[in-house]
Amino acid sequence: MTPDVTHLLARFVADSHWQDIPAEVRHESERTIVNFVGAALGGCRDEAVELALRALGPFFGPPQATVIGRSERPDALSAAFLNAISANVLEFDDTHLQTVIHPAAPVVPAMFALAELHPVSGRDLLHAVILGVEAECRIGKAVTPSHYRRGWHITSTCGVFGSAAAAGKLLGLDRQQMAWALGNAAAQSAGLIESLGSMAKSISVGNAARNGLAAALLAAQGFTGSEQAIEGTYGFARVVSDKADFGAITDGLGDSWEILANAYKPYPCGVVLFPVIDGCLELRERHALSTERIARVTVRGHPLLRMRADRPDVTSGREAKVSVQHSVAVAFLYGAAGLAQYTDQCVAEPAVLDFRRNVAIEEDANIPVETAFVSIQAMDGSRFECHVTKSRGTMARPMSDAELETKFRDLAQYGAPTVDPERLIAAVWAIEKQHDVARTIGMAAR
Amino acid sequence: MTPDVTHLLARFVADSHWQDIPAEVRHESERTIVNFVGAALGGCRDEAVELALRALGPFFGPPQATVIGRSERPDALSAAFLNAISANVLEFDDTHLQTVIHPAAPVVPAMFALAELHPVSGRDLLHAVILGVEAECRIGKAVTPSHYRRGWHITSTCGVFGSAAAAGKLLGLDRQQMAWALGNAAAQSAGLIESLGSMAKSISVGNAARNGLAAALLAAQGFTGSEQAIEGTYGFARVVSDKADFGAITDGLGDSWEILANAYKPYPCGVVLFPVIDGCLELRERHALSTERIARVTVRGHPLLRMRADRPDVTSGREAKVSVQHSVAVAFLYGAAGLAQYTDQCVAEPAVLDFRRNVAIEEDANIPVETAFVSIQAMDGSRFECHVTKSRGTMARPMSDAELETKFRDLAQYGAPTVDPERLIAAVWAIEKQHDVARTIGMAAR
Repeated sequence: MTPDVTHLLARFVADSHWQDIPAEVRHESERTIVNFVGAALGGCRDEAVELALRALGPFFGPPQATVIGRSERPDALSAAFLNAISANVLEFDDTHLQTVIHPAAPVVPAMFALAELHPVSGRDLLHAVILGVEAECRIGKAVTPSHYRRGWHITSTCGVFGSAAAAGKLLGLDRQQMAWALGNAAAQSAGLIESLGSMAKSISVGNAARNGLAAALLAAQGFTGSEQAIEGTYGFARVVSDKADFGAITDGLGDSWEILANAYKPYPCGVVLFPVIDGCLELRERHALSTERIARVTVRGHPLLRMRADRPDVTSGREAKVSVQHSVAVAFLYGAAGLAQYTDQCVAEPAVLDFRRNVAIEEDANIPVETAFVSIQAMDGSRFECHVTKSRGTMARPMSDAELETKFRDLAQYGAPTVDPERLIAAVWAIEKQHDVARTIGMAAR
Repeated sequence: MTPDVTHLLARFVADSHWQDIPAEVRHESERTIVNFVGAALGGCRDEAVELALRALGPFFGPPQATVIGRSERPDALSAAFLNAISANVLEFDDTHLQTVIHPAAPVVPAMFALAELHPVSGRDLLHAVILGVEAECRIGKAVTPSHYRRGWHITSTCGVFGSAAAAGKLLGLDRQQMAWALGNAAAQSAGLIESLGSMAKSISVGNAARNGLAAALLAAQGFTGSEQAIEGTYGFARVVSDKADFGAITDGLGDSWEILANAYKPYPCGVVLFPVIDGCLELRERHALSTERIARVTVRGHPLLRMRADRPDVTSGREAKVSVQHSVAVAFLYGAAGLAQYTDQCVAEPAVLDFRRNVAIEEDANIPVETAFVSIQAMDGSRFECHVTKSRGTMARPMSDAELETKFRDLAQYGAPTVDPERLIAAVWAIEKQHDVARTIGMAAR
């Protein structure tokens, strides 16, 4: 018989105490927030954000909440929507590698928005974020891998549960209300892989944050959701996966913490591309090969690499973020794969267009997804190969706190140069001690 | 090769002219709107609407649009959300029988909201509604029957496309923008069968209206959606069905009209229950049997009847709307299955609780879903049977204009007794001649 998954998860979230959270988990939640704020500062002037503001601004409610990196001040639900888009739009946010969920974008914006409506302490905010990440990643694990394979954008589809759980925690929902919040989230779970490469992906990520928050606000008023929203015959997990692993949701709750498996991106592109870029950069440095001397680059990786990122003919920076061919080209041409290498302008560079034709992909189901082989066939017939087993930004080789700060500064400079990054970085590292985090959040406004 | 479904549908909607719409289609759209406004008046004080207003009201934007039957005046997106909930919450709205989509609830609220932002003529409004219904029902046909069977609430999941197409038409989107609007809708398609029986169902119906409108508003600003949102490898139709029938979307566009297959409910409950209730009422009238003399009622129907409505132990009016056992009990006990028979109070009546234990369901895959056999085993051993082949409110026996007006009056009396139904009914029938429909819509406010 299926366990009472929705209620077990709701009870865990509703009953969790700050004292139950280990120190390393608390620190990881701060790292997640540092990385989140940086990513949102970097993305806050992306066209998707500008156009969303122009299209939906006329419907915004009272000025309640900060839009990170900007001067607009919309209602809390709209701020959650926009900040989630900013944090995710550059593909430079965090990743829970087992599920490829980007955990922060759906969860943290809802917490920031609530914390500007009513005073919230740093501890309560971190606690809610930890629990929201736990909920979305456990639900994601239960439906992985068939969920993504079927075409679901898992950050959006599972993120709405994370936002609902976290918002429910900050709102102090009881067990029954928390179950309804999860049910109200399930009713709104959406997002297709087909949207990747267009701005529409941002809508489902923004909605995950917004709608999860709305789900909890509704539940707080007694708005009922399905009692078996996750495990029911027509519940989320059964409808969107081949076979749901409910134990991934209910086993070891409170003993293990998914946020400890959160990774932070060193490159602003799809996570499957990291070992590929690491390998290209390493080969370039090791052999000092000029690109004219390279006849062919072959990338060998897990089948997911081809499935997600075999895009030889991309025409925009947005699409390039999920293109092996573009990423390989810029890594060899510029020795970098940063924000500047994923602009529309860079995608149109003749040298890039030329070089990406030399890139081939081979798939091998035996290669773990976080590793890759990159080999070069030189014009003179010589071959060089690099096997990346520990890609930067993975659990085996995580970004340090200092690297996260450097990344934050780069992103702030890119998207919100008027925001003072040092003051904001210091405030976020100190968030656990704050009685009211609204001032820190306000520092992120332009 | 798969045809360019998203673009073909977008082109049809963008290029359609009012002159192309046959007179009977125009009249059916007026009937759809009469039925929609009545349903929304009836549902506008439901607890789901009250709680949604309480939970989300603090985030509403400027007073732009009417909430049917009420005095609140939120922003256009929120009004679309609320009016869709009101229209659908009593399960008394319209039904496209082949797909079981309730077409009006996601589409008409978005049109009403837009028509209060900028002047819109009656013709343009009807035209947009007709095209929105066409889009959602054709997409629904393409994924039927596996979509619903998998657990998707098709009114919500397909409704968002209808709202986007209709809103796109009123906004004057070109072909490319219309395709983006459909893509932006696909990114937001959501709603689970598991939510039925809880208030969460209303969230996905409300979101279908709201998010479809947002999808079109975003597309109007150049916010890009997937170009193959429906037919792509990870597009809507492939992800949410076993096998998509793309011809159902692209064949005969402009020659046939789905709104002509729209049916209006005579009873405020699940459409699979209509032939059952017809049969019970007929047997009751024909044989004048008092309930004490009935030992057992057996209902034989299509397997969908059991799948959707075999609910012997319902405890609320909301659940009772999808319960064979409750519906049979009230039909025999009260000779009626109206709004009064689907209240929490009626569900708790000892006589109802008693009688529903005598109801059995048998399934037979050879029985069409719109028909049923109802048989009575009397205490004295005698048996009576009734075979309903043309259930009221189906295409074989549609509600007349006069019956729709009577239903409208009952609903207005039930949910919004301060609204003058006669004035509103007359205004809606005359909508095609209006240069600006805002005044008519405003009449629906309390």
